[in-house]
Amino acid sequence: MNSAKIHPQALVDPGSTLGAGTRVWAFAHVCEGVVIGNDCNLCDHTFFEKGVRLGNRVTIKCGVYLWEGVKLEDDVFVGPCVAFTNDLRPRSKKYPAKFSSTRLSQGCSIGANATLLPVTIGRWALIAAGSVVTRDVPDFALVRGNPARLTGWVCRCGETLHFDAAAEARCECGGYFQKKSETSIREINI
Amino acid sequence: MNSAKIHPQALVDPGSTLGAGTRVWAFAHVCEGVVIGNDCNLCDHTFFEKGVRLGNRVTIKCGVYLWEGVKLEDDVFVGPCVAFTNDLRPRSKKYPAKFSSTRLSQGCSIGANATLLPVTIGRWALIAAGSVVTRDVPDFALVRGNPARLTGWVCRCGETLHFDAAAEARCECGGYFQKKSETSIREINI
Amino acid sequence: MNSAKIHPQALVDPGSTLGAGTRVWAFAHVCEGVVIGNDCNLCDHTFFEKGVRLGNRVTIKCGVYLWEGVKLEDDVFVGPCVAFTNDLRPRSKKYPAKFSSTRLSQGCSIGANATLLPVTIGRWALIAAGSVVTRDVPDFALVRGNPARLTGWVCRCGETLHFDAAAEARCECGGYFQKKSETSIREINI
Repeated sequence: MNSAKIHPQALVDPGSTLGAGTRVWAFAHVCEGVVIGNDCNLCDHTFFEKGVRLGNRVTIKCGVYLWEGVKLEDDVFVGPCVAFTNDLRPRSKKYPAKFSSTRLSQGCSIGANATLLPVTIGRWALIAAGSVVTRDVPDFALVRGNPARLTGWVCRCGETLHFDAAAEARCECGGYFQKKSETSIREINI
Repeated sequence: MNSAKIHPQALVDPGSTLGAGTRVWAFAHVCEGVVIGNDCNLCDHTFFEKGVRLGNRVTIKCGVYLWEGVKLEDDVFVGPCVAFTNDLRPRSKKYPAKFSSTRLSQGCSIGANATLLPVTIGRWALIAAGSVVTRDVPDFALVRGNPARLTGWVCRCGETLHFDAAAEARCECGGYFQKKSETSIREINI
Repeated sequence: MNSAKIHPQALVDPGSTLGAGTRVWAFAHVCEGVVIGNDCNLCDHTFFEKGVRLGNRVTIKCGVYLWEGVKLEDDVFVGPCVAFTNDLRPRSKKYPAKFSSTRLSQGCSIGANATLLPVTIGRWALIAAGSVVTRDVPDFALVRGNPARLTGWVCRCGETLHFDAAAEARCECGGYFQKKSETSIREINI
Protein backbone atom coordinates (compact mmCIF):
# COMPACT_ATOMS: atom_id res chain seq x y z
CA MET A 1 0.00 0.00 0.00
CA ASN A 2 1.05 3.57 -0.55
CA SER A 3 -0.52 6.94 -0.06
CA ALA A 4 -1.51 7.53 -3.68
CA LYS A 5 -5.08 8.79 -4.13
CA ILE A 6 -6.98 6.67 -6.60
CA HIS A 7 -10.44 7.57 -7.94
CA PRO A 8 -12.91 4.70 -7.53
CA GLN A 9 -13.38 4.63 -11.31
CA ALA A 10 -9.63 4.38 -12.05
CA LEU A 11 -7.95 1.07 -12.82
CA VAL A 12 -4.61 0.43 -11.16
CA ASP A 13 -3.46 -3.07 -11.99
CA PRO A 14 -1.57 -5.23 -9.48
CA GLY A 15 2.19 -5.04 -9.94
CA SER A 16 2.29 -1.32 -10.69
CA THR A 17 3.97 1.23 -8.42
CA LEU A 18 2.54 4.64 -7.52
CA GLY A 19 4.55 7.12 -5.44
CA ALA A 20 3.24 8.95 -2.42
CA GLY A 21 0.94 11.86 -3.14
CA THR A 22 0.24 10.75 -6.70
CA ARG A 23 -3.36 11.09 -7.86
CA VAL A 24 -5.05 8.85 -10.41
CA TRP A 25 -8.34 10.13 -11.78
CA ALA A 26 -11.43 8.50 -13.26
CA PHE A 27 -11.11 6.17 -16.26
CA ALA A 28 -7.31 6.21 -16.02
CA HIS A 29 -5.63 2.82 -16.40
CA VAL A 30 -2.18 2.00 -14.99
CA CYS A 31 -0.95 -1.42 -16.13
CA GLU A 32 1.21 -3.98 -14.40
CA GLY A 33 4.90 -3.10 -14.35
CA VAL A 34 4.43 0.67 -14.60
CA VAL A 35 6.48 2.79 -12.17
CA ILE A 36 5.15 6.25 -11.28
CA GLY A 37 6.97 8.66 -8.93
CA ASN A 38 5.66 10.90 -6.16
CA ASP A 39 3.17 13.73 -6.45
CA CYS A 40 2.19 13.00 -10.03
CA ASN A 41 -1.20 13.83 -11.49
CA LEU A 42 -2.67 11.28 -13.90
CA CYS A 43 -5.88 12.80 -15.25
CA ASP A 44 -9.05 11.17 -16.56
CA HIS A 45 -8.85 8.96 -19.66
CA THR A 46 -5.11 8.25 -19.55
CA PHE A 47 -3.30 4.95 -20.13
CA PHE A 48 0.06 3.66 -18.93
CA GLU A 49 1.41 0.56 -20.63
CA LYS A 50 3.81 -1.94 -19.11
CA GLY A 51 7.34 -0.52 -18.99
CA VAL A 52 6.38 3.16 -18.74
CA ARG A 53 8.42 5.16 -16.20
CA LEU A 54 7.46 8.54 -14.72
CA GLY A 55 9.57 10.64 -12.35
CA ASN A 56 8.18 12.91 -9.63
CA ARG A 57 5.73 15.79 -9.99
CA VAL A 58 4.73 14.81 -13.53
CA THR A 59 1.38 15.99 -14.93
CA ILE A 60 -0.43 13.90 -17.54
CA LYS A 61 -3.57 15.61 -18.82
CA CYS A 62 -6.61 13.84 -20.24
CA GLY A 63 -6.46 11.72 -23.37
CA VAL A 64 -2.76 10.81 -23.17
CA TYR A 65 -1.67 7.19 -23.72
CA LEU A 66 1.90 6.20 -22.83
CA TRP A 67 3.55 3.15 -24.42
CA GLU A 68 6.39 0.83 -23.61
CA GLY A 69 9.61 2.69 -24.36
CA VAL A 70 8.44 6.06 -23.00
CA LYS A 71 10.31 7.57 -20.06
CA LEU A 72 9.42 10.89 -18.41
CA GLU A 73 11.78 12.60 -15.98
CA ASP A 74 10.76 14.81 -13.04
CA ASP A 75 8.53 17.87 -13.47
CA VAL A 76 7.33 17.05 -16.99
CA PHE A 77 3.99 18.43 -18.21
CA VAL A 78 2.09 16.58 -20.93
CA GLY A 79 -0.93 18.48 -22.24
CA PRO A 80 -4.24 16.95 -23.29
CA CYS A 81 -4.46 14.73 -26.37
CA VAL A 82 -0.67 14.50 -26.85
CA ALA A 83 0.13 11.39 -28.91
CA PHE A 84 3.18 9.18 -28.35
CA THR A 85 4.60 6.55 -30.72
CA ASN A 86 7.07 3.68 -30.42
CA ASP A 87 7.10 2.19 -33.93
CA LEU A 88 7.95 4.21 -37.04
CA ARG A 89 6.62 1.58 -39.46
CA PRO A 90 3.62 0.07 -37.72
CA ARG A 91 1.76 -2.86 -39.23
CA SER A 92 -1.10 -4.61 -37.49
CA LYS A 93 0.06 -7.68 -35.56
CA LYS A 94 3.73 -7.15 -36.55
CA TYR A 95 5.99 -6.14 -33.68
CA PRO A 96 9.53 -4.77 -33.94
CA ALA A 97 12.30 -6.63 -32.09
CA LYS A 98 12.52 -3.60 -29.80
CA PHE A 99 10.17 -0.64 -29.54
CA SER A 100 11.68 2.78 -30.22
CA SER A 101 12.13 4.95 -27.15
CA THR A 102 10.98 8.44 -26.27
CA ARG A 103 12.54 10.42 -23.44
CA LEU A 104 11.08 13.60 -21.97
CA SER A 105 13.81 15.34 -19.98
CA GLN A 106 13.30 17.18 -16.72
CA GLY A 107 10.82 20.01 -16.69
CA CYS A 108 9.83 20.00 -20.36
CA SER A 109 6.24 20.77 -21.40
CA ILE A 110 4.36 19.23 -24.31
CA GLY A 111 1.50 21.39 -25.61
CA ALA A 112 -1.97 20.06 -26.28
CA ASN A 113 -2.46 17.66 -29.19
CA ALA A 114 1.22 17.56 -30.12
CA THR A 115 2.49 14.36 -31.76
CA LEU A 116 5.84 12.91 -30.72
CA LEU A 117 7.76 10.52 -32.92
CA PRO A 118 10.35 8.53 -30.92
CA VAL A 119 12.61 11.43 -29.89
CA THR A 120 14.36 13.00 -26.91
CA ILE A 121 12.93 16.29 -25.67
CA GLY A 122 15.47 18.45 -23.84
CA ARG A 123 15.20 19.83 -20.31
CA TRP A 124 12.64 22.62 -19.89
CA ALA A 125 11.88 22.66 -23.62
CA LEU A 126 8.43 23.80 -24.70
CA ILE A 127 6.57 22.06 -27.53
CA ALA A 128 3.83 24.28 -28.92
CA ALA A 129 0.30 22.90 -29.08
CA GLY A 130 -0.41 20.96 -32.27
CA SER A 131 3.26 20.40 -33.18
CA VAL A 132 4.47 17.21 -34.88
CA VAL A 133 7.92 16.52 -33.44
CA THR A 134 10.09 14.41 -35.75
CA ARG A 135 13.56 15.22 -34.37
CA ASP A 136 15.26 15.64 -30.98
CA VAL A 137 14.64 18.99 -29.30
CA PRO A 138 17.44 20.84 -27.40
CA ASP A 139 17.20 21.97 -23.77
CA PHE A 140 15.12 25.17 -23.32
CA ALA A 141 14.03 25.16 -26.98
CA LEU A 142 10.63 26.34 -28.19
CA VAL A 143 9.47 24.40 -31.25
CA ARG A 144 6.26 24.53 -33.27
CA GLY A 145 4.64 23.40 -36.52
CA ASN A 146 4.31 20.26 -38.65
CA PRO A 147 7.10 19.24 -38.78
CA ALA A 148 8.17 21.13 -35.66
CA ARG A 149 10.91 23.75 -36.14
CA LEU A 150 13.01 25.61 -33.58
CA THR A 151 11.48 29.07 -33.23
CA GLY A 152 12.93 30.38 -29.96
CA TRP A 153 14.08 29.68 -26.44
CA VAL A 154 12.33 29.65 -23.08
CA CYS A 155 13.35 29.97 -19.45
CA ARG A 156 12.60 27.40 -16.76
CA CYS A 157 9.64 29.60 -15.89
CA GLY A 158 8.29 29.27 -19.45
CA GLU A 159 8.88 32.86 -20.60
CA THR A 160 10.57 33.63 -23.92
CA LEU A 161 14.28 34.48 -23.73
CA HIS A 162 15.64 37.48 -25.64
CA PHE A 163 19.38 37.28 -26.33
CA ASP A 164 21.42 40.49 -26.53
CA ALA A 165 24.42 41.30 -28.72
CA ALA A 166 26.67 39.50 -26.25
CA ALA A 167 24.54 36.36 -26.74
CA GLU A 168 23.21 36.57 -23.19
CA ALA A 169 19.63 36.57 -21.95
CA ARG A 170 18.26 37.43 -18.53
CA CYS A 171 14.73 36.48 -17.59
CA GLU A 172 12.60 38.51 -15.18
CA CYS A 173 12.43 35.45 -12.95
CA GLY A 174 16.20 35.56 -12.47
CA GLY A 175 17.16 32.97 -15.12
CA TYR A 176 20.43 33.74 -16.93
CA PHE A 177 21.43 32.07 -20.20
CA GLN A 178 24.18 32.14 -22.80
CA LYS A 179 23.75 31.17 -26.45
CA LYS A 180 26.34 28.62 -27.51
CA SER A 181 25.20 28.19 -31.10
CA GLU A 182 22.10 28.59 -33.24
CA THR A 183 20.85 25.30 -31.82
CA SER A 184 21.92 25.29 -28.19
CA ILE A 185 21.92 27.53 -25.14
CA ARG A 186 23.42 27.15 -21.68
CA GLU A 187 22.03 28.08 -18.28
CA ILE A 188 24.44 30.06 -16.12
CA ASN A 189 24.29 29.49 -12.39
CA ILE A 190 25.06 32.71 -10.61
CA MET B 1 -33.17 15.92 -10.20
CA ASN B 2 -33.60 16.86 -13.82
CA SER B 3 -34.61 15.06 -16.97
CA ALA B 4 -31.13 14.59 -18.37
CA LYS B 5 -30.40 11.06 -19.60
CA ILE B 6 -27.25 9.69 -18.06
CA HIS B 7 -25.60 6.44 -19.14
CA PRO B 8 -24.98 4.11 -16.18
CA GLN B 9 -21.22 4.23 -16.95
CA ALA B 10 -21.08 8.05 -16.98
CA LEU B 11 -19.88 10.05 -13.97
CA VAL B 12 -21.88 13.13 -13.08
CA ASP B 13 -20.49 14.61 -9.88
CA PRO B 14 -22.75 16.23 -7.26
CA GLY B 15 -22.96 19.98 -7.64
CA SER B 16 -23.07 19.98 -11.44
CA THR B 17 -26.08 21.11 -13.47
CA LEU B 18 -27.46 19.35 -16.54
CA GLY B 19 -30.34 20.85 -18.53
CA ALA B 20 -33.44 18.98 -19.60
CA GLY B 21 -32.99 16.65 -22.53
CA THR B 22 -29.21 16.58 -22.25
CA ARG B 23 -27.59 13.18 -22.73
CA VAL B 24 -24.38 12.05 -21.09
CA TRP B 25 -22.81 8.92 -22.55
CA ALA B 26 -20.51 6.21 -21.21
CA PHE B 27 -17.18 7.12 -19.62
CA ALA B 28 -18.03 10.83 -19.72
CA HIS B 29 -17.20 12.78 -16.55
CA VAL B 30 -18.94 15.99 -15.53
CA CYS B 31 -17.28 17.60 -12.50
CA GLU B 32 -18.75 19.63 -9.67
CA GLY B 33 -19.60 23.20 -10.62
CA VAL B 34 -20.10 22.56 -14.33
CA VAL B 35 -23.22 24.06 -15.90
CA ILE B 36 -24.63 22.40 -19.04
CA GLY B 37 -27.71 23.67 -20.89
CA ASN B 38 -30.65 21.84 -22.42
CA ASP B 39 -30.59 19.23 -25.17
CA CYS B 40 -26.81 18.86 -25.23
CA ASN B 41 -25.05 15.68 -26.29
CA LEU B 42 -21.93 14.76 -24.32
CA CYS B 43 -20.45 11.71 -26.01
CA ASP B 44 -18.31 8.89 -24.63
CA HIS B 45 -14.87 9.70 -23.17
CA THR B 46 -15.43 13.42 -22.56
CA PHE B 47 -14.45 15.49 -19.52
CA PHE B 48 -15.88 18.72 -18.11
CA GLU B 49 -13.78 20.51 -15.51
CA LYS B 50 -15.08 22.79 -12.80
CA GLY B 51 -16.09 26.17 -14.25
CA VAL B 52 -16.97 24.96 -17.75
CA ARG B 53 -20.19 26.44 -19.17
CA LEU B 54 -22.19 25.06 -22.11
CA GLY B 55 -25.27 26.64 -23.67
CA ASN B 56 -28.16 24.73 -25.22
CA ARG B 57 -28.04 22.17 -28.04
CA VAL B 58 -24.27 21.79 -27.86
CA THR B 59 -22.63 18.63 -29.24
CA ILE B 60 -19.37 17.37 -27.74
CA LYS B 61 -18.02 14.37 -29.61
CA CYS B 62 -15.75 11.68 -28.14
CA GLY B 63 -12.30 12.46 -26.76
CA VAL B 64 -12.90 16.13 -25.94
CA TYR B 65 -11.77 17.53 -22.57
CA LEU B 66 -12.98 20.96 -21.50
CA TRP B 67 -11.04 23.03 -18.95
CA GLU B 68 -11.79 25.85 -16.58
CA GLY B 69 -11.99 29.02 -18.65
CA VAL B 70 -13.84 27.45 -21.58
CA LYS B 71 -17.31 28.73 -22.44
CA LEU B 72 -19.48 27.40 -25.27
CA GLU B 73 -22.56 29.25 -26.46
CA ASP B 74 -25.71 27.67 -27.92
CA ASP B 75 -25.60 25.33 -30.94
CA VAL B 76 -21.84 24.74 -30.89
CA PHE B 77 -20.44 21.55 -32.42
CA VAL B 78 -17.10 20.20 -31.18
CA GLY B 79 -15.77 17.30 -33.26
CA PRO B 80 -13.89 14.30 -31.92
CA CYS B 81 -10.40 14.69 -30.43
CA VAL B 82 -10.51 18.50 -30.42
CA ALA B 83 -7.96 19.81 -27.88
CA PHE B 84 -8.53 22.88 -25.68
CA THR B 85 -5.90 24.81 -23.71
CA ASN B 86 -5.96 27.36 -20.92
CA ASP B 87 -2.26 28.05 -20.26
CA LEU B 88 0.14 29.23 -22.97
CA ARG B 89 3.28 28.46 -20.92
CA PRO B 90 2.41 25.34 -18.95
CA ARG B 91 4.82 23.92 -16.40
CA SER B 92 3.99 20.94 -14.22
CA LYS B 93 2.61 21.98 -10.83
CA LYS B 94 2.85 25.73 -11.65
CA TYR B 95 -0.49 27.44 -12.06
CA PRO B 96 -1.14 30.89 -13.55
CA ALA B 97 -2.95 33.45 -11.39
CA LYS B 98 -5.84 33.13 -13.83
CA PHE B 99 -6.37 30.58 -16.57
CA SER B 100 -6.72 31.95 -20.11
CA SER B 101 -10.22 31.79 -21.54
CA THR B 102 -11.63 30.30 -24.72
CA ARG B 103 -15.05 31.27 -26.05
CA LEU B 104 -16.92 29.41 -28.78
CA SER B 105 -19.65 31.70 -30.08
CA GLN B 106 -23.11 30.58 -31.12
CA GLY B 107 -23.34 27.95 -33.81
CA CYS B 108 -19.65 27.53 -34.60
CA SER B 109 -18.23 24.11 -35.49
CA ILE B 110 -14.80 22.79 -34.60
CA GLY B 111 -13.56 20.04 -36.92
CA ALA B 112 -12.05 16.80 -35.68
CA ASN B 113 -8.64 16.90 -33.99
CA ALA B 114 -8.33 20.68 -34.19
CA THR B 115 -6.25 22.39 -31.48
CA LEU B 116 -7.51 25.63 -29.94
CA LEU B 117 -5.18 28.02 -28.16
CA PRO B 118 -7.08 30.39 -25.83
CA VAL B 119 -9.08 32.28 -28.48
CA THR B 120 -12.56 33.43 -29.39
CA ILE B 121 -14.24 31.63 -32.28
CA GLY B 122 -16.89 33.73 -34.02
CA ARG B 123 -20.54 32.84 -34.56
CA TRP B 124 -21.13 30.05 -37.12
CA ALA B 125 -17.43 29.89 -37.98
CA LEU B 126 -16.10 26.57 -39.25
CA ILE B 127 -12.69 25.29 -38.15
CA ALA B 128 -11.38 22.65 -40.55
CA ALA B 129 -10.35 19.29 -39.15
CA GLY B 130 -6.75 19.20 -37.95
CA SER B 131 -6.33 22.98 -37.71
CA VAL B 132 -4.22 24.65 -35.02
CA VAL B 133 -6.01 27.87 -34.13
CA THR B 134 -3.68 30.50 -32.64
CA ARG B 135 -5.75 33.65 -33.22
CA ASP B 136 -9.36 34.78 -32.91
CA VAL B 137 -11.62 33.71 -35.77
CA PRO B 138 -14.30 36.05 -37.22
CA ASP B 139 -18.00 35.19 -37.49
CA PHE B 140 -18.80 32.88 -40.45
CA ALA B 141 -15.10 32.37 -41.23
CA LEU B 142 -13.65 29.13 -42.56
CA VAL B 143 -10.09 28.56 -41.34
CA ARG B 144 -7.65 25.69 -41.84
CA GLY B 145 -4.01 24.66 -41.44
CA ASN B 146 -1.23 24.87 -38.84
CA PRO B 147 -1.33 27.70 -37.95
CA ALA B 148 -4.92 28.17 -39.13
CA ARG B 149 -5.47 30.79 -41.84
CA LEU B 150 -8.68 32.34 -43.14
CA THR B 151 -9.53 30.56 -46.41
CA GLY B 152 -13.20 31.38 -46.98
CA TRP B 153 -16.62 32.04 -45.54
CA VAL B 154 -19.56 29.81 -44.68
CA CYS B 155 -23.29 30.24 -44.20
CA ARG B 156 -25.18 29.24 -41.07
CA CYS B 157 -26.03 26.04 -42.94
CA GLY B 158 -22.31 25.29 -43.38
CA GLU B 159 -22.09 25.81 -47.16
CA THR B 160 -19.33 27.94 -48.71
CA LEU B 161 -20.30 31.51 -49.59
CA HIS B 162 -19.35 32.96 -52.98
CA PHE B 163 -19.24 36.77 -53.04
CA ASP B 164 -20.10 38.59 -56.26
CA ALA B 165 -18.65 41.86 -57.65
CA ALA B 166 -21.01 43.80 -55.38
CA ALA B 167 -19.50 41.97 -52.38
CA GLU B 168 -22.74 40.12 -51.73
CA ALA B 169 -23.36 36.40 -51.36
CA ARG B 170 -26.62 34.46 -51.38
CA CYS B 171 -26.73 30.90 -50.15
CA GLU B 172 -29.16 28.30 -51.54
CA CYS B 173 -30.59 27.98 -48.03
CA GLY B 174 -31.68 31.63 -48.12
CA GLY B 175 -28.75 33.14 -46.24
CA TYR B 176 -27.70 36.60 -47.47
CA PHE B 177 -24.35 38.20 -46.61
CA GLN B 178 -22.31 41.30 -47.35
CA LYS B 179 -18.52 41.49 -47.22
CA LYS B 180 -17.37 44.37 -45.05
CA SER B 181 -13.62 43.82 -45.40
CA GLU B 182 -11.16 41.06 -46.21
CA THR B 183 -11.59 39.81 -42.65
CA SER B 184 -15.26 40.33 -41.87
CA ILE B 185 -18.68 39.72 -43.34
CA ARG B 186 -22.17 40.68 -42.22
CA GLU B 187 -25.40 38.71 -42.31
CA ILE B 188 -28.33 40.64 -43.82
CA ASN B 189 -31.76 39.99 -42.40
CA ILE B 190 -34.33 40.28 -45.15
CA MET C 1 -21.56 -16.19 -27.30
CA ASN C 2 -18.18 -16.13 -28.95
CA SER C 3 -14.62 -16.51 -27.83
CA ALA C 4 -13.74 -12.81 -27.76
CA LYS C 5 -11.90 -11.69 -24.62
CA ILE C 6 -13.60 -8.73 -23.03
CA HIS C 7 -12.11 -6.72 -20.15
CA PRO C 8 -14.55 -6.39 -17.23
CA GLN C 9 -14.44 -2.60 -17.62
CA ALA C 10 -15.26 -2.69 -21.37
CA LEU C 11 -18.79 -2.10 -22.66
CA VAL C 12 -20.01 -4.41 -25.40
CA ASP C 13 -23.63 -3.63 -26.17
CA PRO C 14 -26.13 -6.34 -27.09
CA GLY C 15 -26.55 -6.72 -30.84
CA SER C 16 -22.88 -6.26 -31.67
CA THR C 17 -20.70 -9.00 -33.15
CA LEU C 18 -17.14 -9.78 -32.10
CA GLY C 19 -15.09 -12.43 -33.93
CA ALA C 20 -13.14 -15.21 -32.26
CA GLY C 21 -9.89 -14.16 -30.66
CA THR C 22 -10.77 -10.47 -30.62
CA ARG C 23 -9.80 -8.57 -27.48
CA VAL C 24 -11.66 -5.58 -26.09
CA TRP C 25 -9.82 -3.60 -23.42
CA ALA C 26 -10.89 -1.38 -20.56
CA PHE C 27 -13.15 1.62 -21.16
CA ALA C 28 -13.73 0.55 -24.78
CA HIS C 29 -17.34 0.76 -25.97
CA VAL C 30 -18.75 -1.32 -28.84
CA CYS C 31 -22.29 -0.25 -29.76
CA GLU C 32 -25.22 -2.24 -31.07
CA GLY C 33 -24.94 -3.16 -34.72
CA VAL C 34 -21.15 -3.05 -34.92
CA VAL C 35 -19.47 -5.99 -36.66
CA ILE C 36 -15.86 -6.79 -35.71
CA GLY C 37 -13.86 -9.64 -37.28
CA ASN C 38 -11.52 -12.19 -35.76
CA ASP C 39 -8.30 -11.56 -33.83
CA CYS C 40 -8.77 -7.80 -33.60
CA ASN C 41 -7.33 -5.70 -30.79
CA LEU C 42 -9.55 -2.86 -29.54
CA CYS C 43 -7.49 -0.94 -26.99
CA ASP C 44 -8.55 1.14 -23.98
CA HIS C 45 -10.68 4.26 -24.55
CA THR C 46 -11.99 3.38 -28.01
CA PHE C 47 -15.52 3.75 -29.37
CA PHE C 48 -17.36 1.92 -32.14
CA GLU C 49 -20.60 3.48 -33.36
CA LYS C 50 -23.50 1.64 -34.95
CA GLY C 51 -22.67 0.66 -38.53
CA VAL C 52 -18.90 0.38 -38.11
CA ARG C 53 -17.33 -2.66 -39.79
CA LEU C 54 -13.89 -4.10 -39.05
CA GLY C 55 -12.23 -7.01 -40.86
CA ASN C 56 -9.85 -9.50 -39.27
CA ARG C 57 -6.60 -8.80 -37.41
CA VAL C 58 -7.30 -5.07 -37.10
CA THR C 59 -5.54 -3.04 -34.39
CA ILE C 60 -7.23 0.03 -32.92
CA LYS C 61 -5.00 1.86 -30.45
CA CYS C 62 -6.21 4.02 -27.57
CA GLY C 63 -8.24 7.17 -28.10
CA VAL C 64 -9.75 6.23 -31.47
CA TYR C 65 -13.46 6.73 -32.10
CA LEU C 66 -15.05 5.15 -35.18
CA TRP C 67 -18.27 6.54 -36.67
CA GLU C 68 -21.05 5.27 -38.85
CA GLY C 69 -19.74 5.18 -42.41
CA VAL C 70 -16.26 3.91 -41.49
CA LYS C 71 -15.16 0.54 -42.85
CA LEU C 72 -11.79 -1.10 -42.12
CA GLU C 73 -10.55 -4.08 -44.10
CA ASP C 74 -8.30 -6.86 -42.81
CA ASP C 75 -4.91 -6.14 -41.21
CA VAL C 76 -5.43 -2.40 -40.74
CA PHE C 77 -3.47 -0.58 -38.01
CA VAL C 78 -4.91 2.62 -36.51
CA GLY C 79 -2.50 4.42 -34.20
CA PRO C 80 -3.44 6.27 -31.02
CA CYS C 81 -5.52 9.46 -31.16
CA VAL C 82 -6.34 9.12 -34.87
CA ALA C 83 -9.49 11.14 -35.64
CA PHE C 84 -12.16 10.06 -38.10
CA THR C 85 -14.91 12.23 -39.62
CA ASN C 86 -18.15 11.58 -41.48
CA ASP C 87 -19.54 15.07 -42.09
CA LEU C 88 -17.59 17.80 -43.93
CA ARG C 89 -19.90 20.61 -42.79
CA PRO C 90 -20.96 19.66 -39.28
CA ARG C 91 -23.50 21.75 -37.39
CA SER C 92 -24.82 20.79 -33.98
CA LYS C 93 -28.07 18.83 -34.19
CA LYS C 94 -28.12 18.97 -38.02
CA TYR C 95 -27.59 15.61 -39.69
CA PRO C 96 -26.80 14.99 -43.38
CA ALA C 97 -29.15 12.72 -45.35
CA LYS C 98 -26.27 10.25 -45.49
CA PHE C 99 -22.97 10.31 -43.62
CA SER C 100 -19.82 10.42 -45.73
CA SER C 101 -17.84 7.19 -45.80
CA THR C 102 -14.23 6.37 -45.03
CA ARG C 103 -12.60 3.15 -46.18
CA LEU C 104 -9.28 1.84 -44.94
CA SER C 105 -8.08 -0.82 -47.38
CA GLN C 106 -6.27 -3.99 -46.45
CA GLY C 107 -3.08 -3.64 -44.47
CA CYS C 108 -2.82 0.14 -44.35
CA SER C 109 -1.44 1.90 -41.27
CA ILE C 110 -2.57 5.24 -39.87
CA GLY C 111 0.06 6.99 -37.75
CA ALA C 112 -0.67 8.50 -34.35
CA ASN C 113 -2.86 11.60 -34.17
CA ALA C 114 -3.54 11.69 -37.91
CA THR C 115 -6.86 13.22 -39.01
CA LEU C 116 -8.85 11.55 -41.77
CA LEU C 117 -11.48 13.41 -43.76
CA PRO C 118 -13.92 11.03 -45.49
CA VAL C 119 -11.45 9.34 -47.88
CA THR C 120 -10.27 5.97 -49.11
CA ILE C 121 -6.83 4.86 -47.97
CA GLY C 122 -5.18 2.38 -50.33
CA ARG C 123 -3.87 -1.08 -49.48
CA TRP C 124 -0.71 -1.09 -47.33
CA ALA C 125 -0.45 2.69 -47.47
CA LEU C 126 1.28 4.42 -44.55
CA ILE C 127 -0.05 7.70 -43.16
CA ALA C 128 2.62 9.52 -41.18
CA ALA C 129 1.85 10.54 -37.61
CA GLY C 130 0.14 13.92 -37.35
CA SER C 131 -0.99 14.05 -41.00
CA VAL C 132 -4.29 15.63 -42.07
CA VAL C 133 -5.56 13.51 -44.96
CA THR C 134 -7.94 15.41 -47.24
CA ARG C 135 -7.74 13.25 -50.39
CA ASP C 136 -7.71 9.57 -51.32
CA VAL C 137 -4.35 7.84 -50.85
CA PRO C 138 -3.04 5.27 -53.39
CA ASP C 139 -1.99 1.72 -52.51
CA PHE C 140 1.49 1.53 -50.89
CA ALA C 141 1.76 5.33 -50.68
CA LEU C 142 3.51 7.17 -47.86
CA VAL C 143 1.88 10.54 -47.13
CA ARG C 144 2.61 13.20 -44.53
CA GLY C 145 1.85 16.80 -43.52
CA ASN C 146 -1.14 19.13 -43.24
CA PRO C 147 -2.60 18.71 -45.79
CA ALA C 148 -1.00 15.33 -46.40
CA ARG C 149 1.15 15.02 -49.55
CA LEU C 150 2.56 11.95 -51.27
CA THR C 151 6.23 11.72 -50.26
CA GLY C 152 7.19 8.13 -51.08
CA TRP C 153 6.21 4.50 -51.29
CA VAL C 154 6.36 1.62 -48.85
CA CYS C 155 6.40 -2.15 -49.06
CA ARG C 156 3.91 -4.44 -47.32
CA CYS C 157 6.55 -4.78 -44.61
CA GLY C 158 6.55 -1.01 -44.08
CA GLU C 159 10.03 -0.26 -45.46
CA THR C 160 10.60 2.57 -47.95
CA LEU C 161 10.81 1.52 -51.61
CA HIS C 162 13.60 2.89 -53.82
CA PHE C 163 12.82 2.76 -57.54
CA ASP C 164 15.65 2.29 -60.03
CA ALA C 165 16.02 3.70 -63.56
CA ALA C 166 13.80 0.93 -64.87
CA ALA C 167 11.06 2.07 -62.46
CA GLU C 168 11.37 -1.09 -60.40
CA ALA C 169 11.94 -1.52 -56.68
CA ARG C 170 12.93 -4.62 -54.72
CA CYS C 171 12.54 -4.69 -50.96
CA GLU C 172 14.82 -6.70 -48.68
CA CYS C 173 11.77 -8.62 -47.53
CA GLY C 174 11.24 -9.92 -51.08
CA GLY C 175 8.61 -7.41 -52.20
CA TYR C 176 8.87 -6.42 -55.87
CA PHE C 177 7.15 -3.34 -57.33
CA GLN C 178 6.84 -1.42 -60.58
CA LYS C 179 6.06 2.29 -60.83
CA LYS C 180 3.16 2.92 -63.18
CA SER C 181 3.02 6.71 -62.82
CA GLU C 182 3.99 9.43 -60.40
CA THR C 183 0.92 8.54 -58.36
CA SER C 184 0.64 4.77 -58.57
CA ILE C 185 2.74 1.65 -58.22
CA ARG C 186 2.03 -2.02 -58.81
CA GLU C 187 3.07 -5.07 -56.84
CA ILE C 188 4.57 -7.84 -58.99
CA ASN C 189 3.92 -11.41 -57.93
CA ILE C 190 6.93 -13.53 -58.76
